[in-house]
Amino acid sequence: MVNAPALEVTEPPAAGPPPPPSEVVSAVLSRTAALVGPAIDREVQVLGTGLSAPVAHHLAGGGKRIRAALVLLSARAAGGAEPDAMAGAVAIELIHNFSLLHDDLIDGDRQRRHRSTVWAEFGVGPAVVGGDALATLALQVLLAEPTPPRVRAAASLAEATLAMIAGQADDMAFETRPTVSVAECLAMEAGKTGALLACAMGLGAILVEAPEPVIEALREFGACLGAAFQAVDDLLGIWGDPAVTGKPIGSDLLAGKKTLPVTIALATPEGQPEELGELLDRKWSPSGLSEAELERAAWLVEAGGGRSGASETATRFLRQAEAALHRVPLDEGARAELLDVARFVTERSW
Amino acid sequence: MVNAPALEVTEPPAAGPPPPPSEVVSAVLSRTAALVGPAIDREVQVLGTGLSAPVAHHLAGGGKRIRAALVLLSARAAGGAEPDAMAGAVAIELIHNFSLLHDDLIDGDRQRRHRSTVWAEFGVGPAVVGGDALATLALQVLLAEPTPPRVRAAASLAEATLAMIAGQADDMAFETRPTVSVAECLAMEAGKTGALLACAMGLGAILVEAPEPVIEALREFGACLGAAFQAVDDLLGIWGDPAVTGKPIGSDLLAGKKTLPVTIALATPEGQPEELGELLDRKWSPSGLSEAELERAAWLVEAGGGRSGASETATRFLRQAEAALHRVPLDEGARAELLDVARFVTERSW
Repeated sequence: MVNAPALEVTEPPAAGPPPPPSEVVSAVLSRTAALVGPAIDREVQVLGTGLSAPVAHHLAGGGKRIRAALVLLSARAAGGAEPDAMAGAVAIELIHNFSLLHDDLIDGDRQRRHRSTVWAEFGVGPAVVGGDALATLALQVLLAEPTPPRVRAAASLAEATLAMIAGQADDMAFETRPTVSVAECLAMEAGKTGALLACAMGLGAILVEAPEPVIEALREFGACLGAAFQAVDDLLGIWGDPAVTGKPIGSDLLAGKKTLPVTIALATPEGQPEELGELLDRKWSPSGLSEAELERAAWLVEAGGGRSGASETATRFLRQAEAALHRVPLDEGARAELLDVARFVTERSW
Repeated sequence: MVNAPALEVTEPPAAGPPPPPSEVVSAVLSRTAALVGPAIDREVQVLGTGLSAPVAHHLAGGGKRIRAALVLLSARAAGGAEPDAMAGAVAIELIHNFSLLHDDLIDGDRQRRHRSTVWAEFGVGPAVVGGDALATLALQVLLAEPTPPRVRAAASLAEATLAMIAGQADDMAFETRPTVSVAECLAMEAGKTGALLACAMGLGAILVEAPEPVIEALREFGACLGAAFQAVDDLLGIWGDPAVTGKPIGSDLLAGKKTLPVTIALATPEGQPEELGELLDRKWSPSGLSEAELERAAWLVEAGGGRSGASETATRFLRQAEAALHRVPLDEGARAELLDVARFVTERSW
């Protein structure tokens, strides 16, 4: 478990002890899914016959809708009403699902959420155009009624989408590079994961026309939450329980990924950078990594400070996210829920 | 050659006989490429290191920039200045190149413009994210300065992009359907090809704040030009000279495509729909079509009126495109150049 810091949050007035984060977050996510799911279904009805089958197949997998939840919570935190931010919640989920659909194709993954992926079920063509359609539809949803807040939201979403794509591209490019610095890794992860979470928080605040400092603080919360989430994800990618992650142990090492723990270890003599780099390069050899080599690689990352360093990074970003929420006046109930979401996404076990 | 109708165009005052369309069009395209090429290069500089190599590889292939030329000509035709429409010209070329990049991956084409395609050179991942980046960048270019005309242009481009993607998806879906009506084929082609050409013309007029009837007439010109262009393309896909098209003779029949000539023939007893349908289905069999069967399929399409029907369709849409340009007051020089472009794109030989 991540060593969660003590929260300096003004407790909302409550009759008894507050419910644990997981219960609060479950309720937030259920409510979001009930609101946003049908709205997404309505939007994708505009897609023609050739697109509707692959897109509906992908969307039927559901998903946690955490980005949509951030949009709606951000709107409430900024003192606005959730319905005013619904277009943003729908748009961000469409972008997220576009990226998942294309990621499955890129990674050759045949299963997601216990269902066959679009490319595995329908082929490469429908997966490519299905993702393309979701990405375009997302911006169209915001531009359909081009009020100034929606136009600003669309521009922000386009910018974040491009940052996310650039992060994905860098992530791929890093696999073939002998070494990647910690700073490069953090910049890549800020794009791949942080940009869309920052944008989600920004969208909610922008759409309810919050003051600039509030928009900025909420965006910072999202960016830091993304960085913390990705650091935890990187830890799970090496030491995560396969029963929890649904992936083989050490999957990121098998894939030769230059994640945060790896780049930290590659920068220290204790990580034996040459040996570790050589083990990661086995991705490209037909034999891959043996079980003993996989254990050795994980041990080198740990010896090089990758495990503790990534864990500290997650904690540091979680603290920064919390601090951002305390910098500006916000709706207390929504702030408390955002803090619970932050703890929830960084408290996954590895 | 398509039976080009006599043009009812007010001739611009000229000292001698007007130059042939191909010369006018060459000059228009050279000028456009000189303006738009460097502007595109500037925009893609924002892409990160992981994206820049595949995107630069694709863009280095150049292309005719015909959509950008339509944006700039439309702006001039509407009485505006070309620089005011440059963002639209850049954006539409980025969308067109996004679709080419993804099409090459979908079709498994290893060569474009005598160069290796992105997926063949860099792999599936860089091709997917490279196209994604171009599509997002296109909208970002227009939303960077969100003036009302640019916002409207962005919304129009998103709508056209979605229509284009839907058309591509329908085109693929048609391959596995036993029959497709002529109306369905024309609707698919209006999306796949017409939407972006209509949008190009609309963008130029929108960005120079032309009156609504002018925007509408110019959009109609683009939509009809797209329909005529696609009908010609369909004819070339069956009877085109491989030396000119760069594809094997009858390539669309080998691919089992339900193009306009095919759908026309499938709707008539003379086209022997059952036999023709069976021949097109050979796409899915390992042996494919023999040379004799390919000739038989082409003969059935011709006997079913597919060749003459598609040719008449091209002529009808070209006439409608010309009529649209004569419905509203326009700059005479730009109108004449647009008419030359229209004749040029529909006068390719097959």
